[in-house]
Amino acid sequence: MSKRITGIAASDGIGIAKAYRLVDPDLSFEKKSITDADAEIKRLEQAMSDSTDDLKVIRDKAAENLGESEAEVFDAHMTILADPEMTSQIEELIKSQKINAEEALKEVTDQFITIFEGMTDNKYMQERAADVKDVTKRVMSHLLGKSLPNPALINEPVIVIAHDLTPSDTAQMDTNYVKGFLTDLGGRTSHSAIMSRTLEIPAVVGTEQATQTVQDGDTLVLNGLDGFALVAPDAAEIAQYQEQAKRYAAERAEWRKLKDAASVSKDGKHFEVAANIGTPDDIDAVVDAGAEAVGLFRTEFLYMNSDKLPSEDDQFEAYKKVAEAMHGKPVVIRTMDIGGDKHLPYLPLPEEMNPFLGYRAIRISLDRQEIFRTQLRALIRASHYGEIRIMFPMIATLDEFRAAKQVFSEEKAKLVADGVPVADDIKLGMMVEIPASAVFADQFAKEVDFFSIGTNDLIQYTFAADRGNEHVSYLYQPYNPALLRLIKNVIDAAHKEGKIAAMCGEMAGDQVAVPLLMGMGLDEYSMSATSVLRVRSQMKHLDTTDWAQVVDEAITTCQTNEEVKALVEKHLQA
Amino acid sequence: MSKRITGIAASDGIGIAKAYRLVDPDLSFEKKSITDADAEIKRLEQAMSDSTDDLKVIRDKAAENLGESEAEVFDAHMTILADPEMTSQIEELIKSQKINAEEALKEVTDQFITIFEGMTDNKYMQERAADVKDVTKRVMSHLLGKSLPNPALINEPVIVIAHDLTPSDTAQMDTNYVKGFLTDLGGRTSHSAIMSRTLEIPAVVGTEQATQTVQDGDTLVLNGLDGFALVAPDAAEIAQYQEQAKRYAAERAEWRKLKDAASVSKDGKHFEVAANIGTPDDIDAVVDAGAEAVGLFRTEFLYMNSDKLPSEDDQFEAYKKVAEAMHGKPVVIRTMDIGGDKHLPYLPLPEEMNPFLGYRAIRISLDRQEIFRTQLRALIRASHYGEIRIMFPMIATLDEFRAAKQVFSEEKAKLVADGVPVADDIKLGMMVEIPASAVFADQFAKEVDFFSIGTNDLIQYTFAADRGNEHVSYLYQPYNPALLRLIKNVIDAAHKEGKIAAMCGEMAGDQVAVPLLMGMGLDEYSMSATSVLRVRSQMKHLDTTDWAQVVDEAITTCQTNEEVKALVEKHLQA
Repeated sequence: MSKRITGIAASDGIGIAKAYRLVDPDLSFEKKSITDADAEIKRLEQAMSDSTDDLKVIRDKAAENLGESEAEVFDAHMTILADPEMTSQIEELIKSQKINAEEALKEVTDQFITIFEGMTDNKYMQERAADVKDVTKRVMSHLLGKSLPNPALINEPVIVIAHDLTPSDTAQMDTNYVKGFLTDLGGRTSHSAIMSRTLEIPAVVGTEQATQTVQDGDTLVLNGLDGFALVAPDAAEIAQYQEQAKRYAAERAEWRKLKDAASVSKDGKHFEVAANIGTPDDIDAVVDAGAEAVGLFRTEFLYMNSDKLPSEDDQFEAYKKVAEAMHGKPVVIRTMDIGGDKHLPYLPLPEEMNPFLGYRAIRISLDRQEIFRTQLRALIRASHYGEIRIMFPMIATLDEFRAAKQVFSEEKAKLVADGVPVADDIKLGMMVEIPASAVFADQFAKEVDFFSIGTNDLIQYTFAADRGNEHVSYLYQPYNPALLRLIKNVIDAAHKEGKIAAMCGEMAGDQVAVPLLMGMGLDEYSMSATSVLRVRSQMKHLDTTDWAQVVDEAITTCQTNEEVKALVEKHLQA
Repeated sequence: MSKRITGIAASDGIGIAKAYRLVDPDLSFEKKSITDADAEIKRLEQAMSDSTDDLKVIRDKAAENLGESEAEVFDAHMTILADPEMTSQIEELIKSQKINAEEALKEVTDQFITIFEGMTDNKYMQERAADVKDVTKRVMSHLLGKSLPNPALINEPVIVIAHDLTPSDTAQMDTNYVKGFLTDLGGRTSHSAIMSRTLEIPAVVGTEQATQTVQDGDTLVLNGLDGFALVAPDAAEIAQYQEQAKRYAAERAEWRKLKDAASVSKDGKHFEVAANIGTPDDIDAVVDAGAEAVGLFRTEFLYMNSDKLPSEDDQFEAYKKVAEAMHGKPVVIRTMDIGGDKHLPYLPLPEEMNPFLGYRAIRISLDRQEIFRTQLRALIRASHYGEIRIMFPMIATLDEFRAAKQVFSEEKAKLVADGVPVADDIKLGMMVEIPASAVFADQFAKEVDFFSIGTNDLIQYTFAADRGNEHVSYLYQPYNPALLRLIKNVIDAAHKEGKIAAMCGEMAGDQVAVPLLMGMGLDEYSMSATSVLRVRSQMKHLDTTDWAQVVDEAITTCQTNEEVKALVEKHLQA
């Protein structure tokens, strides 16, 4: 009998492959007195030599799979191993203190790490500290006769088992071989989940037990559609899920045919299915998916992948590139949302007890206007090259929206006076992600050109629950009727003033939420590029008049998230 | 001409007195090489002896003003000064390193502090670390020829100037001499502000410049009614504010006459004006103010003033005491709201990035039910001795309220089965302090006995702005029409089901908010005991029908916090 592990369905698809544990072994050890120092030094040298051998293989694989620049980190590791200074200090300690190689290795490398990490204003040395840690781990594993996982060496189909996935984990692996991710931690909006959707790899996260239950080499079925995995499935189960995987592949092929189709409901209502992007490089996937717009272009990357504030020209080029690539389709660009969990090394922000309730996004932009004006000038200049719309994040009050609009108007007037070509009518909108602005949408709707509902933050504030905090993750309730009422209020308010209502959170691509949002008349749905065609396909089968009635029932009769979910699923099956 | 400093009016009243700066002088110094070690050791000994002299005087004053137990901390300081171990280490360092006494003092005391603070599981040693810091500061000030403020020595009328006030600051001063507080930091809900209202001392906080502008001994007028201070007022100004202080005193005398009156509007509608308390000791002030109820009894003190979870019996005694003291008037007791910014040394909670959006209050109670059940049993047993009502904090979903009610019912049934006398019909309510529950109040109203709107948290979540964070304090907007709509929704929902709507945040005692809340029909207003009679007096002059119309205008026509405030003030003056 197979063993079932349940979790959160984080990325669609079915994977069947052997398990690959991306989990560090236990590298703890005891400090010991030794008598034969020479033998101990030999052990150390052997472990270092084995580590160098590892690194050579990993380095070549990484270069082959991922390219030279990804492989360079392993050169750095080999350089550390070849450093006579460090080696001689460890050997000296073994001789003078008569301690085992593990303890001597740890004491010496700890010193190096402390010194490097102490240079807090030197990013280069901080990275060296991380390198020394990695190398120490590798040498220690050889000393202890345990093997480290080497994701760069994956060269057959696997399902990766991990406590949680970090960006550096995935940077090392050839994702062509990865047929799924199964993790202990995370939710629908965690890094692991978002990345797996971007890479189109099935994923189940938040199992709380994957690394405890699954052994290296176990055969696994991973079901990212329904959120579970089977460990050691029998032949019948494998056949069953191979069949389901085939059906899912066929379904995806059907979706592909909708690439150039419009997004239309069964009863002929038109919608826009759009995509979220984080950098100009993401635009190819958007075009490839046939999205009708970029519904959210996050501009933080410009600030984060840099060691100083990005210049107006650099920003202009990035915005122009995306605008041109979309050939006149709308591109909604959000002004910077720094603060919260995003910090910049060159822009010191206050230490805050609750950064998600702190100095971030438009609050910084209105306070540090030189940064905001530079971004707005770049956006206004780029407006000449496509259909650029500008959106302000974290608007809580009308005063803030008016202040932001005023700054925009001033910069636009200056550019026009200087003879710079700009679009006539640049649309200005706002994120609705703070409860106050959802409640007050009727008044906001008189002054904005469009709303975009940011459900990740809106849910977090509406239920007062940090979406990254596993202890309160049960309060991430996208179908809770209280939340649905706020969303409906925003959509109704927009339409009453003839404005567009969009959504750009995870919820916009959610199969349970989409029918409800269509029933409310939401105009634009912006999501990962990989979900666009699935949602367009789903829309074809839904009648908006029917779903308007379901919405009524959901917000007046249902009392909990689960009741709404059950109601929608009942109607979807009908 | 006097100089005017504006800030936030945090506690009513007018104070006129000399400034007393509770501000540490700059104690920085340079490390120096010295040649005459004996002379340097003499300097050190003189500074230590002067410090001991200080402490003797302070100790006696503190014992006289505040009692023996408050004075004991200064005995501990003198013990440290008399410790030959520390002194000899400093002297040794001066001799061996030929460094100045300041540097030697710092190096040696830093070592002691590091060691003591390192004993993280030993509360006693942690306190010793704080003592060593205090003593070092005092000796350093004598070495540098600067004087430390000694709040325990205040023996004439003063207005205290501080960057911010801590509980230990006020513990040291005889508040009979303190005629006002003027601080750089803080808002209406900061510790300084709440404390000044409890002590009935006028206060202006958040001036951002008090400690820079005001010198020791400057004459000051402090106006806690309108939120400003005058530095070096002329004779005419002094006369003017003496006059206003007299009028205010007369007004307070009028309010006193309402102690046994009902709280009734001009048009004869009855309300309840209630008080918030934090410990059973606060109940005298509530009875003295003639409050019609305890609208909020915070139970955290039971958990925080203890080194282990409080027993059922200890809690029972505390609840019973308050219930009996109120002689049948309602006492609304809130189950524990630990987490957020309140931590317990004996109850490890997870490290959280955003504790205000984290694991706290009912979320902990439902998860750690043994703690919750103990509290509920104590509450149910105490219900026999008065009119106790139970209120759950941080309810976000109906599931949570139902789960809490279920636990309550189980414990009540057990007690009844054991023959313990309990009240028949214990009312169960909830805080409305999370936007989701304000939006969904119509459904909650079917299941609760009462609501109590917690405006401090509700404002913080509705505008996504930490109320303790000065960088976003402009978003603390109690009159913002978006917030007023949520409040009105809660009140209307309660009344539709025949339930009580109360409020227990700062807003319930706010002179601009009270007329609006009366216009909405809010039933109970719970505030600091010191505000009860002022609000009861204000109610007498207000017609609820008139104010219902103002409410309509505020939530449909006004667009900002400032517009509503201006509207209310216009009507109050009419």
